[in-house]
Amino acid sequence: MINVIKKNILVVNGPNLNMLGLREPEIYGRETLDDIAENMTVRAKELGFTVDFYQSNSEGDLVDRIQVARGKYAALIINAAAFSHTSVAIVDALRLVDFPIIEVHLSNIFAREEFRHHSCISPAANGVICGFGANSYILALEAVRNILS
Amino acid sequence: MINVIKKNILVVNGPNLNMLGLREPEIYGRETLDDIAENMTVRAKELGFTVDFYQSNSEGDLVDRIQVARGKYAALIINAAAFSHTSVAIVDALRLVDFPIIEVHLSNIFAREEFRHHSCISPAANGVICGFGANSYILALEAVRNILS
Amino acid sequence: MINVIKKNILVVNGPNLNMLGLREPEIYGRETLDDIAENMTVRAKELGFTVDFYQSNSEGDLVDRIQVARGKYAALIINAAAFSHTSVAIVDALRLVDFPIIEVHLSNIFAREEFRHHSCISPAANGVICGFGANSYILALEAVRNILS
Amino acid sequence: MINVIKKNILVVNGPNLNMLGLREPEIYGRETLDDIAENMTVRAKELGFTVDFYQSNSEGDLVDRIQVARGKYAALIINAAAFSHTSVAIVDALRLVDFPIIEVHLSNIFAREEFRHHSCISPAANGVICGFGANSYILALEAVRNILS
Amino acid sequence: MINVIKKNILVVNGPNLNMLGLREPEIYGRETLDDIAENMTVRAKELGFTVDFYQSNSEGDLVDRIQVARGKYAALIINAAAFSHTSVAIVDALRLVDFPIIEVHLSNIFAREEFRHHSCISPAANGVICGFGANSYILALEAVRNILS
Amino acid sequence: MINVIKKNILVVNGPNLNMLGLREPEIYGRETLDDIAENMTVRAKELGFTVDFYQSNSEGDLVDRIQVARGKYAALIINAAAFSHTSVAIVDALRLVDFPIIEVHLSNIFAREEFRHHSCISPAANGVICGFGANSYILALEAVRNILS
Amino acid sequence: MINVIKKNILVVNGPNLNMLGLREPEIYGRETLDDIAENMTVRAKELGFTVDFYQSNSEGDLVDRIQVARGKYAALIINAAAFSHTSVAIVDALRLVDFPIIEVHLSNIFAREEFRHHSCISPAANGVICGFGANSYILALEAVRNILS
Amino acid sequence: MINVIKKNILVVNGPNLNMLGLREPEIYGRETLDDIAENMTVRAKELGFTVDFYQSNSEGDLVDRIQVARGKYAALIINAAAFSHTSVAIVDALRLVDFPIIEVHLSNIFAREEFRHHSCISPAANGVICGFGANSYILALEAVRNILS
Amino acid sequence: MINVIKKNILVVNGPNLNMLGLREPEIYGRETLDDIAENMTVRAKELGFTVDFYQSNSEGDLVDRIQVARGKYAALIINAAAFSHTSVAIVDALRLVDFPIIEVHLSNIFAREEFRHHSCISPAANGVICGFGANSYILALEAVRNILS
Amino acid sequence: MINVIKKNILVVNGPNLNMLGLREPEIYGRETLDDIAENMTVRAKELGFTVDFYQSNSEGDLVDRIQVARGKYAALIINAAAFSHTSVAIVDALRLVDFPIIEVHLSNIFAREEFRHHSCISPAANGVICGFGANSYILALEAVRNILS
Amino acid sequence: MINVIKKNILVVNGPNLNMLGLREPEIYGRETLDDIAENMTVRAKELGFTVDFYQSNSEGDLVDRIQVARGKYAALIINAAAFSHTSVAIVDALRLVDFPIIEVHLSNIFAREEFRHHSCISPAANGVICGFGANSYILALEAVRNILS
Amino acid sequence: MINVIKKNILVVNGPNLNMLGLREPEIYGRETLDDIAENMTVRAKELGFTVDFYQSNSEGDLVDRIQVARGKYAALIINAAAFSHTSVAIVDALRLVDFPIIEVHLSNIFAREEFRHHSCISPAANGVICGFGANSYILALEAVRNILS
Repeated sequence: MINVIKKNILVVNGPNLNMLGLREPEIYGRETLDDIAENMTVRAKELGFTVDFYQSNSEGDLVDRIQVARGKYAALIINAAAFSHTSVAIVDALRLVDFPIIEVHLSNIFAREEFRHHSCISPAANGVICGFGANSYILALEAVRNILS
Repeated sequence: MINVIKKNILVVNGPNLNMLGLREPEIYGRETLDDIAENMTVRAKELGFTVDFYQSNSEGDLVDRIQVARGKYAALIINAAAFSHTSVAIVDALRLVDFPIIEVHLSNIFAREEFRHHSCISPAANGVICGFGANSYILALEAVRNILS
Repeated sequence: MINVIKKNILVVNGPNLNMLGLREPEIYGRETLDDIAENMTVRAKELGFTVDFYQSNSEGDLVDRIQVARGKYAALIINAAAFSHTSVAIVDALRLVDFPIIEVHLSNIFAREEFRHHSCISPAANGVICGFGANSYILALEAVRNILS
Repeated sequence: MINVIKKNILVVNGPNLNMLGLREPEIYGRETLDDIAENMTVRAKELGFTVDFYQSNSEGDLVDRIQVARGKYAALIINAAAFSHTSVAIVDALRLVDFPIIEVHLSNIFAREEFRHHSCISPAANGVICGFGANSYILALEAVRNILS
Repeated sequence: MINVIKKNILVVNGPNLNMLGLREPEIYGRETLDDIAENMTVRAKELGFTVDFYQSNSEGDLVDRIQVARGKYAALIINAAAFSHTSVAIVDALRLVDFPIIEVHLSNIFAREEFRHHSCISPAANGVICGFGANSYILALEAVRNILS
Repeated sequence: MINVIKKNILVVNGPNLNMLGLREPEIYGRETLDDIAENMTVRAKELGFTVDFYQSNSEGDLVDRIQVARGKYAALIINAAAFSHTSVAIVDALRLVDFPIIEVHLSNIFAREEFRHHSCISPAANGVICGFGANSYILALEAVRNILS
Repeated sequence: MINVIKKNILVVNGPNLNMLGLREPEIYGRETLDDIAENMTVRAKELGFTVDFYQSNSEGDLVDRIQVARGKYAALIINAAAFSHTSVAIVDALRLVDFPIIEVHLSNIFAREEFRHHSCISPAANGVICGFGANSYILALEAVRNILS
Repeated sequence: MINVIKKNILVVNGPNLNMLGLREPEIYGRETLDDIAENMTVRAKELGFTVDFYQSNSEGDLVDRIQVARGKYAALIINAAAFSHTSVAIVDALRLVDFPIIEVHLSNIFAREEFRHHSCISPAANGVICGFGANSYILALEAVRNILS
Repeated sequence: MINVIKKNILVVNGPNLNMLGLREPEIYGRETLDDIAENMTVRAKELGFTVDFYQSNSEGDLVDRIQVARGKYAALIINAAAFSHTSVAIVDALRLVDFPIIEVHLSNIFAREEFRHHSCISPAANGVICGFGANSYILALEAVRNILS
Repeated sequence: MINVIKKNILVVNGPNLNMLGLREPEIYGRETLDDIAENMTVRAKELGFTVDFYQSNSEGDLVDRIQVARGKYAALIINAAAFSHTSVAIVDALRLVDFPIIEVHLSNIFAREEFRHHSCISPAANGVICGFGANSYILALEAVRNILS
Repeated sequence: MINVIKKNILVVNGPNLNMLGLREPEIYGRETLDDIAENMTVRAKELGFTVDFYQSNSEGDLVDRIQVARGKYAALIINAAAFSHTSVAIVDALRLVDFPIIEVHLSNIFAREEFRHHSCISPAANGVICGFGANSYILALEAVRNILS
Repeated sequence: MINVIKKNILVVNGPNLNMLGLREPEIYGRETLDDIAENMTVRAKELGFTVDFYQSNSEGDLVDRIQVARGKYAALIINAAAFSHTSVAIVDALRLVDFPIIEVHLSNIFAREEFRHHSCISPAANGVICGFGANSYILALEAVRNILS
């Protein structure tokens, strides 16, 4: 059973990430969150993992989802989006889990508005990967493989 | 079809506004959020608009509601109440929509407690109207008419 | 006589607003402060008001003008422009008058440079309307009508 | 009927408190939130009270629960957990109710990380009790009895 | 002998608390610090404790009193009043003792002037109880009983 | 001629002080700035001085008035009102004069809003007298006499 | 008896003021605190007052002295010296008394080191007089006469 | 006509600069603002320019003067003196003009009091020259020639 | 020739990274900077790249090395170590280059001392990878491949 | 007589230093303040000095002790402990004395809690020695010898 | 020999200035640091000076260069570039020299990113010239001539 | 061999200390860094030590020197001068070494400019000695002897 857990990775996405690719695709690209999920599934399979992909605009739902992950996953990849900058509740939920946590961001948050420079989630994560677009998620998969091996 | 969109305005209300008028009416007045909705409907009709009126105490629900508004409304009037001061998620949702946004407040937030002086929503809005009680909403309707004409 | 007072509204404009529309009209529009005054006069008449329109680049003159307004006007609409961010003297003058005060701005000051986000005048006003261009003034007229009725 | 109200106390618990005791019990103790609820029920009965016990990870649900409490309870005991440090919405909801409010925390928040030192909820409460583990809740019951008698 | 120690609690009171109840009793109530001492003695007896009650307006005397308490008491209840906000010396003295420390305040310090929101003593205490008037002291007795049992 | 200078004191008053006593006299008292001038004249005469009394709402006029005072007065008493908190220009003008400067305020500025606690003029004055109403001016006269004798 | 009270003024002096005039008299002048006391006694007599003069280097003693002054004096003149900048305990003691309080300083504290610019005592005083050397005390006597008459 | 404009430079001077050289000439030098104007005229002539020289102690007058300069000058040299540190109104006026702006200061403002280190005017200028006494103005003339050629 | 450039990646390491693995290897691991260089070379080869590896304790040398990289590399991976928090010079050098920049850190800098939370280099990089030990460098290689393909 | 003074050194110790060595000696060492006094006496004798050793938990007593030292000692060594961070009164007393002052601390205060990093006493001392345990005092003796020779 | 010194000016350039003109010349212009050196040499000759021109990316080398300049130059012109904002070492070196120092910047640093607004070097310079591109250096030459004559 | 190490002490000196005594010797004294080295050698010999003395103006060189000291010295005495206030790189290098570190300063840095009050090096040192001129180094030798014995 531990083997099963060791092979399953939870990917948690915060508010407004469900709109990815749907808006002004000629500018922001046509890659949707579903595309990211699909690409992660493919790459995860190559690395010997499966992924569970979750998105919500609700802080409470994200906390719920992280809580039930305890003991069921090998690792957690989280893009908390706007909640990265404000949610102590998600930080506390992350402190509860017992597997590696990778924080990802599509954009380089340090090159954006001042209020996006600080992520309260970072201290609760093993590491941070940001600024590589959808590839940030794939890099997180590689990071997980390395941590677990 | 664009004409239909051009005529429909979404009004979004944040936490605790559902309690308006129910509490100590001898002090705060008897006008409820339903009364405001009704008055807006009447005035909107005069201006050639219809209004969809929404309230929630949940940040996530408000983000959901704003997201689905894309492409379906002529304008958005928002009183984010307490979330005005804390919600980056609502700011991000507002950045996604493609029609004018008017921020309203019943009270003059600049004459209240220090922590209410800053609204993170304001930079994402076209304009701000605050301090006129229920009339702030009606003035927002007038503002929308002017922007759209 | 009170009726007369009830019908007259003072509109006070701060520094550099006299240059409105004169500069790069192809960019900033051709609407001058005189145009705004004229439009307000028309709309005020419809609402049963008259307006006295005043502009000065001098903080002292603005204080003088506000002082002599005591007892002579039904309401005051003020766009203090640059002085919004620096003038305690105008705040003190506004605290002296005994009728409603509406603060207006052409632009959304919260979407501009950091030092324009704070208006020391706001706490002395009944309400604030900003970001609607010349229409901010017209909306202020509507607000005054509502407060006085 | 007032007697009934006078005897019922609402206990509201914020995010992640549902995980209490479930995680590393050899370290943090085996007392769960259910145990706390049970102990409160017993002690409340001795003091002539009943308790309604509520927990949610959702800020919106907590606001909802506090709103409907109006007129139905003798007092409110709240451990807002992570939301203590961030939620203006809960503060606003607490300002709506008309009975005593006691803020409790299991740990001494002033001896923890800097960002936990400030609770925005405290100014809306009658008093604060923190640092006594599960006993903070029992002490709050005693405090309620004293306030109501 | 340990039993004796286990039964004796030191109650330390800071500056101006000796004036309690003597000033404008029709407003602040007639309960004096002597009344509080007496009520604590009664309740302590019920709980199987004795209390030594001390007050001083001098920071140095309070430090002296705390120092000599080492090894002689089962617990310390302290209302450092004004010194809560300024005295590193009392914090250092509290760090020296080897029994539980409960910080109490009559008023909810978080609902008062800004400079009273921070107590430098809190991190040195096991827990904090504030806002319940004279009952804060009685609740502290209950807290001590729970910690020691 | 020095004797003449030694006997003449300039009293400079900043914005809105001309409204003193004219507004809500039943609340703020009926003493006007003219009354203060008259009382100063009487007391000055007793002390062997004459006073020149000046008020303006204009920062520039106040600077002008202070500049021309050089070499013509024995001392300067200044209540810069709102400009106390903002005017570097008046500070620079005060640095130019060669006789004692007394800063006065009617109210205790340290017991008012935060932004009134700091007077940039104080470091340029010999001393400060505030909080004694119109008597602050009379006390300043006594102070001048003492400095000059 | 009230007449007697009305005639007696307490003068409280904080730390290091006892060294006045004893140190480098060729630089700081030869006027000692005793000289100030004597001069105040003379001037007080002229004004129909008596003065009780007190100095201590101990914050606690100063609090004690202020406490016992309740009901026994017509007014309090206080130069808290170094404690002006740090003592909440003295502020609390001053809040207890029921007669006018005048804060004095020998030097102009606003023209000295940054940390001397803020006096926490000022908000508890009726007014402040600083920068006039020993004459600050005499001016305070004049201020008291004016307040009491 | 453009040639004429290209040859005329406006020099604007802020508060208290009219006192230059008049005060303690043995210390600060005997060079007055008139001397500076004269020297600039001479040097300007050599460079093929004429200069209009203006000084005022009034912020409003300075704004007026800058406004009417639009379209009439080849460049603007400004020493806003005390207003450099406080005037948003002058900044806004400078933003209106369409020719190069050089900010000058007689002293090195960065080597003076903390509050003089920040000039809000600098971001609106092409460049800044400070610390060279009257020669700062002459250097500004050279800078203008270089920018215009 | 562009192909050659496209295949060569510069890896720049800041102060004290040369000590990696040499110090307390039983605690910090035995992997040295040479080991990291070797592992990168192997992985780079698999990805079709070569790597140039550079380390210096001198800010100036790092700036020199980055400058000469212009036009010669396909990408830059930089771990500026201590200079991440202080060096504007390195930021300016990075702004000069015309290929992707990846910032890496061995540790999660956001979980360390406060002064390490801010990297001034981040805004000049395409993305940031931190907290994965030596694997941060390998992940950066993967990121480069993705950016360049 | 000057010789006598030249040979006598006052050592002043602040709050809680009297507890040194008495508490958990197996952890903090068994060296008491008496031991330090004795060691200093021995070393002072070798250097040709005598030492007067003083400790108090009272800020006022410490000020008193420093005041009476004027003219009676060759130098002052002070470990103000907790008062180092808060006492302006001790700073003012130190400013009164006319001989060298050495500030010492047992621990390296810069490696402890944030609030211990700042000593307001340091600017009034000739030099500071901290972090060497009891030896800090002995080093201060050596420093005194060097200053006086 | 003094004449020789009087005629030689050292020009010191900080990090990344060696890249001037080499990067995107179509945007930033083709003027290199060598061009600036050449132009300065020509203009210096006209003014009767010679110039020694130095650039380094190393803070230490810049300090070295400034140190050896003592007694060998008539003046120092410095563009410390990035080090302007961070280097206390260069400030200390500048404090050592005994001739005039002119700080120059190509760009108007006050119109750029926040962290470039403060130059720690400015207080150590006689004056500052910034925002005039390469001409800032030439203006500095003129300034030197004026200071030395 | 450990004995040899135990006997050798490295003394590291930061930027501009090489200029000591060379500049204005009539003011700052004629003692050079060489003199200090020589005096340390003499005193070290008496204490049974040898000293290696190093100075550099380059942060990188200082880091290099500290790195190679690992395992080769009994202790490190460092006066980082200007780098004390800015260099994280030196702090990181100091964290690498395995022997006692003493921070010294010639002047009392707490009595100088604000920016010199904070040394980032202090937390990495065992202790700090400052304000005793060249004797600070000798005292550090004594401190080393005490730590090592």
